Formats: sequence, structure tokens, C-alpha cells
Amino acid sequence: MNGAQGVVSTLLEAGVDTCFMNPGTSEMHLVAALDTAPKLRGVLALFEGVATGAADGYARITGKPAATLLHLGPGLGNGLANLHNARRARSPIVNLVGDHAIAHQPLDAPLQSDIETLARNVSTFVRSAATTEGLSGDVLDAVDAAYGPPGSVATLIIPADVSWNEGGVVAQPLVGTTQRGSGNRPDEAPIEAAGAALRGRGRTAFLIGGRACHGKAFQLVAALAARSGARLLCETFPARLERGAGQPTVEQISYLGDFAVAQLSGLQHLVLVDASSPVSFFAYPNKMSELIPTDCVVHQVSKQGDDLLAALEALSSLIDSGEDTSSRAETGRPDLPTGALNASGVAQAIGHLLPEGAIVSDEGNTGGIFVKGSTAGAPQHDWLSLTGGAIGQGLPVALGAAIAAPDRPVIALQADGSALYTAQALWTMAREGLNVTTIILANRSYAVLNMELDQVGAGVPGPRARAMLDLTDPTMDFVSLAKGFGVGASRAETAEAFSEQLRRALAEPGPSLIEAVIPSLL
Amino acid sequence: MNGAQGVVSTLLEAGVDTCFMNPGTSEMHLVAALDTAPKLRGVLALFEGVATGAADGYARITGKPAATLLHLGPGLGNGLANLHNARRARSPIVNLVGDHAIAHQPLDAPLQSDIETLARNVSTFVRSAATTEGLSGDVLDAVDAAYGPPGSVATLIIPADVSWNEGGVVAQPLVGTTQRGSGNRPDEAPIEAAGAALRGRGRTAFLIGGRACHGKAFQLVAALAARSGARLLCETFPARLERGAGQPTVEQISYLGDFAVAQLSGLQHLVLVDASSPVSFFAYPNKMSELIPTDCVVHQVSKQGDDLLAALEALSSLIDSGEDTSSRAETGRPDLPTGALNASGVAQAIGHLLPEGAIVSDEGNTGGIFVKGSTAGAPQHDWLSLTGGAIGQGLPVALGAAIAAPDRPVIALQADGSALYTAQALWTMAREGLNVTTIILANRSYAVLNMELDQVGAGVPGPRARAMLDLTDPTMDFVSLAKGFGVGASRAETAEAFSEQLRRALAEPGPSLIEAVIPSLL
Repeated sequence: MNGAQGVVSTLLEAGVDTCFMNPGTSEMHLVAALDTAPKLRGVLALFEGVATGAADGYARITGKPAATLLHLGPGLGNGLANLHNARRARSPIVNLVGDHAIAHQPLDAPLQSDIETLARNVSTFVRSAATTEGLSGDVLDAVDAAYGPPGSVATLIIPADVSWNEGGVVAQPLVGTTQRGSGNRPDEAPIEAAGAALRGRGRTAFLIGGRACHGKAFQLVAALAARSGARLLCETFPARLERGAGQPTVEQISYLGDFAVAQLSGLQHLVLVDASSPVSFFAYPNKMSELIPTDCVVHQVSKQGDDLLAALEALSSLIDSGEDTSSRAETGRPDLPTGALNASGVAQAIGHLLPEGAIVSDEGNTGGIFVKGSTAGAPQHDWLSLTGGAIGQGLPVALGAAIAAPDRPVIALQADGSALYTAQALWTMAREGLNVTTIILANRSYAVLNMELDQVGAGVPGPRARAMLDLTDPTMDFVSLAKGFGVGASRAETAEAFSEQLRRALAEPGPSLIEAVIPSLL
Repeated sequence: MNGAQGVVSTLLEAGVDTCFMNPGTSEMHLVAALDTAPKLRGVLALFEGVATGAADGYARITGKPAATLLHLGPGLGNGLANLHNARRARSPIVNLVGDHAIAHQPLDAPLQSDIETLARNVSTFVRSAATTEGLSGDVLDAVDAAYGPPGSVATLIIPADVSWNEGGVVAQPLVGTTQRGSGNRPDEAPIEAAGAALRGRGRTAFLIGGRACHGKAFQLVAALAARSGARLLCETFPARLERGAGQPTVEQISYLGDFAVAQLSGLQHLVLVDASSPVSFFAYPNKMSELIPTDCVVHQVSKQGDDLLAALEALSSLIDSGEDTSSRAETGRPDLPTGALNASGVAQAIGHLLPEGAIVSDEGNTGGIFVKGSTAGAPQHDWLSLTGGAIGQGLPVALGAAIAAPDRPVIALQADGSALYTAQALWTMAREGLNVTTIILANRSYAVLNMELDQVGAGVPGPRARAMLDLTDPTMDFVSLAKGFGVGASRAETAEAFSEQLRRALAEPGPSLIEAVIPSLL
């Protein structure tokens, strides 16, 4: 058994059974080893940013890591933006990066670069495997580091000779995949202070993020908020938020700093649950970056690496018991839109048609601003946000989510400008026959930047500045682009056409794309 | 004047008049400043790897830096692979990366990351601008660092508030753009040793790279080789090689290590001119990475930062004078091909039709192996290679070369798999109306990896490994893809069709793409 064969078998032993890859020569033994480990699913991407984003989407849905396989420093470089987003999402990922054989590294061959330094930017664990005998142990360490909590990117660099030499082993994990630790014991002091504040019934809010936006923790914290009369706020871009009729209603903190300050004004206590105290996404001249009132007291009851459920139970024991009267979203869908298509019409149609159990990968940006509202009363679904602000996440995350949950419909709500960073994801959707409906919100500009130009006080932009934010010269043709990647596509310029195309796309298996032409918001 | 306005005016004063950009919020003042500096040409890219690769192509043709403008760490990450290639090409680039406002950086907003560490991987100069007053001086330092010699990537990180604050200045360069230093004084010892070796008329060769592959240095070294009876070798992937009828003939070192070892066997002295001693591109089991005979003596007469012409003149003074009898490529073109299309036919047609003064951006990889041979006797042209092995360079470099030399025809010779990393370059070609003819060599696989699988001794690949190298499921449709990006395109499946489409594409202005379907090499 060579090192590479040990790696793939060890991944399976540790419960990692999916690898998103864009390999090169230095990873060929790992590719060849796929035939010795038939349960490890290799998913080919045409670009590394697709592979890393897909691993993020996969982790958000399954809660467990996929592996990636990338080609040396440049391959890792291409994957960094979506690893940045994954880092912000606290997604566990086992990031495998091939390297030159150890003796080859000092020779400064063309592809030589400093992989470890690149990896540190996005990883909590970075190791370069030194021996074939130790390689599978390194894999287990990477898997453990990725799981956390908090979940994180663990990067294992594998020199080619460490893969190809004989002496590989199948390492057995000490911890079963279902017995992983639930995190550090939470600090008592902030929990007690938060309990006192909540009992005091001042103007108090919970701010949830990370693991607190779905599953048992989400229900617990919603009940706590109701019992204590506190507001339930959610970070602006949660990694995975459970929504829809019957789910707790949460107020998301606005992306726009001025709106967020208004939302938070008057707050006396903010109880952070897997979230950080809110700051504006960007800084703006003469505006504060910190968004809470200066006299608001912050209580961090669960940090990202803490045992979240233990923290919530401890807090629960400190506040008055009582009924869970938490506000729940009521069932309700908007009517289908009519007439010329715009961002509002797209939102209405999605709200009318969103299937039960859908997963929405939201990189809709400006053109997607109404969709949250229009789907609030739709059947229950998961919402995956752009966590780290590095655009080009939406399509890969949708791809990874669809691999993770083959029986659930996935909708990629995708701004046109952002789609073009990682549009290669469409090809893998076609290759794997994934049930992803991509909706391109074609406003044909970097619309958010037109707004930001004004926000940052850059004055009235001249024609040369405006040209740098404009995508009409030439206008992208997403129907042709999708066809190029093997995905069937259509264009909608009226609300009726969009609704009909969306209905058809959701009904048919496999991927499809709709270019929704939206010259205006309303 | 704010800081951003100072930057754009200072760039112009320093002779930098082109900026390839993909900006975001933190760069909005720099974008707005374009309207205050009309001579600075802003070229928008849909992806950062296009911007950085274009700056590389621009530098290879003009010898001077373009600027880039990228959005924080993730934007730089997306640009890293082509900055890696630029680093290997010794291309001067002024890499501008926006950052959060200084006071915002400690708040760990979603887009916060360690930009400096990322930048170090590819840059000789990294600085984060600290004050608006000093910003334009920082720009000049970055320009100086980029010029070198050796040319390199100089990264200046610009916090948003340093851009937006008042107090910007237009800094004046101390050195005129035409008076830049020509490099360090070369070491005398290796020149004298090389002179003795060349006079001794043993089995001696020059190995040229970098600046020695074009212009005056190229002619000088070819004459030196002829006068001393030495062979003239060239590195495998030169940044810019002048070729065609009348140019010195050079032997390029083979990409395949076994072939290279055979090429170099028996050599007693190797004289390095702007090149490194050759090593194999990858390591392979049981093969040497260093390619020259163990007893071959290496003489480094000009390192990358040295005054190359001074080194060559010093060497010239040490060897017998005599006529320049250097071998020159003879005029000659192949006939047009007929019948089914294959890699050989594509090469013949290009050789038959290559226009005078063309620039070829070569990322043809496996499918392009015959094109060098078929164009050896074509009219003079420049050949730009994939210098750092990070695929996805070809289209962006073609774009940058076309911006640099609007009157010259540019051909992007592009492997299909590699094209898909940065295909967004097509949109910018359409937007700028660039005269680039893209030839996609569609063998519909990562063909080089099939070869490498064998080379690395990974055995006969099983079906699951082969699937990871295969691009037929689904088959990419490059004609549709190009149409999606606004570039007219056609597909050729016969030699006659390819020749006719190539003739038309070269005759017409503006960009076009030909998908050359080549199921086989011959």
C-alpha cells in the first residue's frame, strides 16, 4: 500500500467520503488511489474555487467535512476566496494540497511556492506530511482539527513522494464520527450576567450566529428569547439559517450600517450566541464601524468553540421558566407576479413556488433583496448566506449542498456579476446530474458598488468610474454560458415567463439555469 | 485632492498608464479617481486572475508595469495563480490591493484577512500604506520595486481611509521612465570562467532565459554562441521568445525530463544567461530532478538582477572575435492541412497563416505540441509561454498583450481544460475590441495528466481515476461559452474548416474564438 492509498482509506475510516478535486501531476497517486477506495466519491471541478466552495456547502448541510484535492500553491490560491468564506462559516473542511516531492522542493522548479504560508490565511491546522508511514495519522489529525468545534479548514500538504512511496497504512480514528466532543465548557461569568440581564427585562436581545441558527440550538434560543421577552436577532450572513412557516422569526441585522444602527438603538443588553458583536461590513467616512449603542452591555454566552447546548441550558436554568411563546413564521405565499420582470417579481415567484425542504444558496446581493421577505411563510427550508463577502460562493455552495442532500431541491439565487467568478460550477452540476436551479439575477451591473460608491462618499461618479461597474458592454448571455457548460437554460423578461420557467425547472430533475432579466428593483 | 486622486496621478507621472481591475467597496475612491486622470486606462475584468494575468502579458510586451486593482485578501487570492506566473516571468507589476480602513481592521469584519502574508508569496515588495500624505511616495516605491531589475510584482496595500482622506499629493519620480538602471554589475569570476570554457571549445552550451530571449541581448548571445561554437539552448517556458524566419535558432529544453537529459548529455560547460540550471518540472519516482550531467560545470554569467548587456559584453571581450555565423531560421511555411482535424493539422494551418508581427500566447499544452515546429519559419513573431505552470494564464496574457500592442495580431493558443480557469478574459476582449484570435485545442481531457499518471508510475489508472481527467461528461461547448461572453465563435472539425475559420478570424478586427476539435495528435 502506498501513501496515497492509505490516505483515501483513512479518510473513509474517519467518515470523510466525498472529495471535491482539481488535481495535477503531484496529486496523481491520490487520484489513482480512488480505484482502491470505491466508497470515496471524487467530484471533479474545473476550477479550485468551485471545489473549495462545494466543500463549504457540503459541510453546512451535513455538519461534517468533505475533502478537497488541490494542486500546489497556485491551486490553493485559486481556492482561497471560498476557503475564506468557509472559514467565516466555520465549515469543517479537510483541505489536501499536493506538493513537489521533498527532494525536488529546494530546486525552485516553476511551480514551487510557499504553500504553508498561503494555507495559514484560512486554516487553523496546517501541516506538511513528512513521511509515508505517518501520512494517515496526519490525515486523522486534519479531520479532528476540521471538526473542532469550531469547525474549520484543516490543510494537509502532501509531497508527491510521500504519496507514492510504499509504507502507507490505514489509520483508525480514536473517536467515532458520532462521538465527537461538543466543545469547550462555556465561561460561567457571562452566562450569569446574561441571566441577570434577561431577568431584569430591560431592552435586551439575543444575537445568534453560527450553530445557533439551525437545529436544536435554534429552537432553544428562540424559546429563551420568548421566555425572557428579549428580541431575537440574527447575524447578517448566517452560514445556515432554518426558515419558513413554523420556524422562529428572527430579525437579521441589516447589511447597511445606518439601518443596523437604527435596529439596535436603545438596546441595553446584547446576548451573543455563537456570534460576534456586530460591526459594519465596510468602514465609511465619518461613520462608526461598531453598530451597537456605546452603553449596550455585551454578554458572550457561547463562543464559537464552546459547547453551545451546554451554554444554552445553563442560561435557561437562570431565567424564569414559562411557556415558549416564541413568534413563529405563519404560512403564506405571495401571489404570482405579472407584467414586466423586476427584482420584486422574481422574489414573488420564488415565494410562490419554493418547494418544501429546499436549500437556498443566496448570493443574490442587490437583486435578491426581496426574496427573504417573499419566502418567510413558504414551507421550511435552509438558507445559506455569503459568509465572508468573497463573491463567487453561491454556485459552488449550491453544488456542494446538492451533493450533500441529493433528495432536496437546491436553488442558487445568484447575482450576475458574482456568478462569473465561479461559473464553472455549472459543469459539475451537469456532470453529477444535480438538482440545482440557478436563478441569475441579471441587473447587468455591479449594482452593489454603485450604491457603495455613494456610501463611501466618493461623490457623483464620472463616466470612467461608472464604466468600471457596468456589465452591459457586452451584455453577458447566461443562457449561452450555461449551454457551454452543459446546463439547459432559458431567459425570462416577463414575470409570467419567469414563473413558468421556474415551475418547470423545479419540476424537472437535474440542473437548469434561468437568466432573470431585472432592469429595476420594483 | 484625496489620497486616491494622488495615486492615479502619481502612477501616470511614473509612466504607469494602464490598470487592470476588479474592484470592490474598499477601492471605490480609486475607481472614482479615474475621472480625474483621463490618461490612466482602466480595464475591467470579471475575475481577478484575468486582471493579474493581463498585467503580466502587458509587461512582457512593453517591458513596463501595468497596475492592477484588487479587492482585499480574497481578491488578491483570486489573482495569485497568475501573479505566480508573473513572478516566474519576472514581469514588473504594480499590484494595488484595497483594504479596510485602518480603524476597521481590528474589528474582524467578514472580509478581514491577512493580506500582507498572501502578498509575500508572489511579491518582492509588500507595503501597507499608512498615511494619505505618504501614499503617493509608496506608489513610487512600488513602481521602482516592480521595475527592478529583476522585474517583479510589487504589492501596495491601500486602506480605504488612506484613499479617501484629503491630503493626497502627486509625487514626482526621481528616475525618468527611460533612465532606469540596467541592473547590478555582474560577477567577474563566472564570466572569466565561462570565457575560458568557451575558448576551450569543449562541449559547451549557452542556456538563455528571461531577458536574454528577445531584443538586443538575444542577438548578442546568439552571436557569442556562434563565435565560440557553443550550442544555444533556451529554457522550456521563456516569458518572451522572439522567433520566426531570420531569428536565431534555439533549442528549447524539453518539458519531458528523459528527453531533456538526452538533450543535455555529454555537456561539459553550461553558460547560464538569465536562466537557472535546468531541473525537471515535476519530480518522478527513481528519476533525477537535476537534468545536466553530474560533471557539467555551470557558469552563471548573468543572474536575473544583473546588468545583462554588460555581462554579455564582458564575455564577448574574452572570446575570439569573428563573424556572427549564428544559425537563423529559414523562411518556410507548411502547406495547409486537409482531412480530419487533429493537433498536427491545427499546427500546419497556424504555420501557414501566422501573420507578420504576431504575438502568440501559448497555453496549448499537449494539443499544441506541434505549433512551435510549424511556425519556426513563419514571419517574425513573439512567443509568450506559461512560465510558472499555473494554468489559466493563456487568455489573460493574450488580453494584456493585445492592450500593450493594439496594432499586432494576438493568437491565444489555448488548451481546453486550462481555458476554463480564466475564460472570463473573453468578455474583456470583447469589451475592449481586442484583436485576439483564441484557438481552443479541444481534446476534451486533461491530456497532460493522462501522460503524467503514467510518468509518475501510478500504474494503469482505473475507471474512477480516469474519470477525474476526462472532460467529456458533459462535453464543453466553447462556441456557446464564447457567445456567453460576447465573443463570436465557430467550431472546426475538419482541417479545411479550421483553416478557413482561422483565415477569417485573422482578417477581421476584434476578438474571435475557434473551437478546434482534435480527437488525436496525428
